[in-house]
Amino acid sequence: MVNFNKNDINDMDKVFRLNLINSCTGYKSANLIGTISNEGINNLAVFSSITHLGSNPSLLGFILRPTVVPRDTYKNIKDRTEFSINHITISQIDEAHHTSYKYNSKISEFDKTKLIEEYKKNWNVPFVKDSPVQIGCKYLNEYFIKENDTLLIVGSIEEIFIKEKMLKKDGFIKLEDGDVTTINGLDSYANPKLIKRIPYSSVKKR
Amino acid sequence: MVNFNKNDINDMDKVFRLNLINSCTGYKSANLIGTISNEGINNLAVFSSITHLGSNPSLLGFILRPTVVPRDTYKNIKDRTEFSINHITISQIDEAHHTSYKYNSKISEFDKTKLIEEYKKNWNVPFVKDSPVQIGCKYLNEYFIKENDTLLIVGSIEEIFIKEKMLKKDGFIKLEDGDVTTINGLDSYANPKLIKRIPYSSVKKR
Repeated sequence: MVNFNKNDINDMDKVFRLNLINSCTGYKSANLIGTISNEGINNLAVFSSITHLGSNPSLLGFILRPTVVPRDTYKNIKDRTEFSINHITISQIDEAHHTSYKYNSKISEFDKTKLIEEYKKNWNVPFVKDSPVQIGCKYLNEYFIKENDTLLIVGSIEEIFIKEKMLKKDGFIKLEDGDVTTINGLDSYANPKLIKRIPYSSVKKR
Repeated sequence: MVNFNKNDINDMDKVFRLNLINSCTGYKSANLIGTISNEGINNLAVFSSITHLGSNPSLLGFILRPTVVPRDTYKNIKDRTEFSINHITISQIDEAHHTSYKYNSKISEFDKTKLIEEYKKNWNVPFVKDSPVQIGCKYLNEYFIKENDTLLIVGSIEEIFIKEKMLKKDGFIKLEDGDVTTINGLDSYANPKLIKRIPYSSVKKR
């Protein structure tokens, strides 16, 4: 095996370290966060840090660097509370990833990509049309992570929209049935195929 | 699309909600955390919440419920500082998932599964043999998430071991080349195939 210790990591070329550390924790969720500014301009940004926090209450979290990119997402969420989370499908990869380009805040990423806004009853923020899982969220809190000046944003899951064929009888959303992708590292998208489910009841004492 | 609002989610059968909310945020990382107790007993537990926090300094985080399972992992990390993170491969799925069974803290999950301890120079905690990406970490801090009484554990990445053929020239770890899995929901494991990388330089203003 190849081996890098702390000194090796500290001394690395910046791009090499970015690629290595971003891919060493495993596969990540592939989502677009949709927001709207006080001026009424939509924003869409790709995120790979959205994480399940708990089911009851239904909460999720994601990490951002408030002083760096994507500051539009943060400002809009703080101003307006609402945000949408939209899973990225195989056919959306190129357009979704293009939202990482740093357009100024007067420009909507929907105007610079082929992704299309979808509006939902009771929601002001845009969702992404044809995203097979869409979640309407509200900002609840943020935690400043002093070790690297990032923020954990905590949001409540207020409403979920799921492509019908993905939803199984017991509530399981089979992501593969919506062609949902996963992110490896900074810039790579992969297509997972389900190997197996292991029901809780089958995990028995040995 | 199927649609669940906040009231629907609150009124759901508990298992249905667990499955739904655990699978609605997208694919998750599939890892085993290895620790050792003050009494010298190894512990191994499956986690799907390990998230990249930053590259410089190199940090990761994960979520746990200190008052519920897996409390051995938390106690050992607090007592001993060190922990290992080990990616779960296709052939390790059944044994890795079995670590979710709640054995008492005197029992090592290595004795109840076919997973084998691997010891590394300068580390007291066990790693998982044949895991193609292994990370030696140290506890740095924890943040109590008051919205649902969970903890975000922040750890520093101190040393990384990677199966040689997975590491590309620019630092990218191609997880597929190590048969690394991803988790969908509570109990499902999937095998991703890389679709494409989109280099930073190719994301140009439109």
